[in-house]
Amino acid sequence: MTGEQPGEFDLIARLVESVDEARRGDSVSGGQVLVGSGDDAAVTAPAGITATSVDAFIEGVHFRRDTAPLASIGYKAMAVALSDLAAMGAAPGEAYVQFGVPADLSEEESLDLARGLGGAAAAAGATVIGGDLTRAPVLMLALTVVGHAGSANELVTRSGAQRGDLVAVTGELGGAAAGLLLLERAELAGGLDADVAEALRRRQLEPSPRLAAGRALAGSGATAMIDLSDGLGGDAGHIAAASGVGLAIDLEAVPVQAGVDTAAEAAGVDRWDLVTSGGEDYELLATLPPGRLDEARSTVAEAGNTLIPIGEVTDGEGVSLRQADGSVREASGFDQLRR
Amino acid sequence: MTGEQPGEFDLIARLVESVDEARRGDSVSGGQVLVGSGDDAAVTAPAGITATSVDAFIEGVHFRRDTAPLASIGYKAMAVALSDLAAMGAAPGEAYVQFGVPADLSEEESLDLARGLGGAAAAAGATVIGGDLTRAPVLMLALTVVGHAGSANELVTRSGAQRGDLVAVTGELGGAAAGLLLLERAELAGGLDADVAEALRRRQLEPSPRLAAGRALAGSGATAMIDLSDGLGGDAGHIAAASGVGLAIDLEAVPVQAGVDTAAEAAGVDRWDLVTSGGEDYELLATLPPGRLDEARSTVAEAGNTLIPIGEVTDGEGVSLRQADGSVREASGFDQLRR
Repeated sequence: MTGEQPGEFDLIARLVESVDEARRGDSVSGGQVLVGSGDDAAVTAPAGITATSVDAFIEGVHFRRDTAPLASIGYKAMAVALSDLAAMGAAPGEAYVQFGVPADLSEEESLDLARGLGGAAAAAGATVIGGDLTRAPVLMLALTVVGHAGSANELVTRSGAQRGDLVAVTGELGGAAAGLLLLERAELAGGLDADVAEALRRRQLEPSPRLAAGRALAGSGATAMIDLSDGLGGDAGHIAAASGVGLAIDLEAVPVQAGVDTAAEAAGVDRWDLVTSGGEDYELLATLPPGRLDEARSTVAEAGNTLIPIGEVTDGEGVSLRQADGSVREASGFDQLRR
Repeated sequence: MTGEQPGEFDLIARLVESVDEARRGDSVSGGQVLVGSGDDAAVTAPAGITATSVDAFIEGVHFRRDTAPLASIGYKAMAVALSDLAAMGAAPGEAYVQFGVPADLSEEESLDLARGLGGAAAAAGATVIGGDLTRAPVLMLALTVVGHAGSANELVTRSGAQRGDLVAVTGELGGAAAGLLLLERAELAGGLDADVAEALRRRQLEPSPRLAAGRALAGSGATAMIDLSDGLGGDAGHIAAASGVGLAIDLEAVPVQAGVDTAAEAAGVDRWDLVTSGGEDYELLATLPPGRLDEARSTVAEAGNTLIPIGEVTDGEGVSLRQADGSVREASGFDQLRR
């Protein structure tokens, strides 16, 4: 190894160190780290049950280095991975990061990426305790996140929606897709207030996993839950399929982020494409009995978010997106292999 | 989605199904699967402590599709990932697979890959319970494997080697590097018996994680342990560094796989390059008190492997590879970022 080009063992240590500093004996949410980064495996003592999710982020497929700073790429990858734990109602615990680093990424850029990953983990209360580093033809991140709960009853799957339940969504939708338009075509921001435009770009670049809202919903009677990664239509379809029910959603009730309409108009696209198919807002879509709505709105508010009822669970199958004029919009999801 | 090109949700389901069939309520080693593939996260109830390792395998860096069948690529990726659990002495439990699939890989080829992954998992007693599928510029696999143990005392890290311990190795070395030579230059096999050559190629294509031997060593006093992925010199160096000791290894004592000498001669390379720097044999290197050697040899034999003492733990630092003539060979490891 030379001073100019550090070897794997140096760089892994520096990357993991810049992501976080888990050490033997550190407590993480839901357990304790017994052996941290640097051995063949990380050893933890989970206190209850674990929820584990894996997500890959690949340059040219999930992000582009010319429209997103490296710290944001890292931040978003971790946030998106943790969003799956939010959708279960799990408390975030440990994370593992596999870096595939192309030859044209400098060590300083690698560290920016790692700092973004660490920033999102820290903001969520997760701890990076292991990883792997390899050469790759393009920048790639593969994340594994582990969440915790006392028992399986505390978690919410996609499969428990019951006919008669309400369908509700946290936060506001459409912002991530509108933000992507602004990042790709800066001139579209002309008609927007600067902070509205910045909030849209931020939603695209550095989304927030709704972990506290997810735990609130899990504790307030949610029967099924999913995070909105692929788009409202597609993700609602996953709940419908897993639960063996239909979901009827009133589009007019769906909360839309400020500036989405203006950005859609400037780009000449349909606002509802951004809201229902754009995806990447990482809000939560949940079903719950109508009698639990007030409690759920209150606990989600305590978690710093909002919960808006937007439809109901029906007999039958699939998702019906009802428009203001009574017509039904085709539900389209987002398919990773189509990108 | 069309019948010709299934969407992500179909193909993930088929891939995970062809890898394994974890279902709610299935028992896995070390716990129970409460929610399997198809939800936002997989939920398990670990019975003790967990050891988690992540490994990425990238086309052009870790393998080439023109020298290895897809089933072998999948098999090796899973075997290599599980080898890290062997090196801790953990019992294999759950695995998660992230597939990055290039456009030129057919669905049938993807399923071959998944069957290889599943074959290695099944052979080791591990269960694939989750995954992720995405488009990628080259074929990529990112694996997460989780092992189990009753308590941290049952596991072996890299950092416990003590001055005066013996250094011992399971199995035979050099075969994976010799096998790679044969795969890349078929004519080199001319001087070898057909089954000797096939055993060398097999060692390269489908290595066996030494999980039973790892647990045997952990139970028989091993003070430090690592799997031989980077090469004897480099991996011994990791134990030396983590334990704050030196390792002195007598090369003449190192067991070498049949055919390695002949393949090295045919290729015009030094046999010791294959044995000490080639890596990928995935045998275990352990340190243990001399008084535990007989017991360890016996329990490793019960696990179907051999254990050969090849040196000792010394004061100082680093690795000394002593040659028959008394001279010392430079210890060189394998650096993933150099490939």
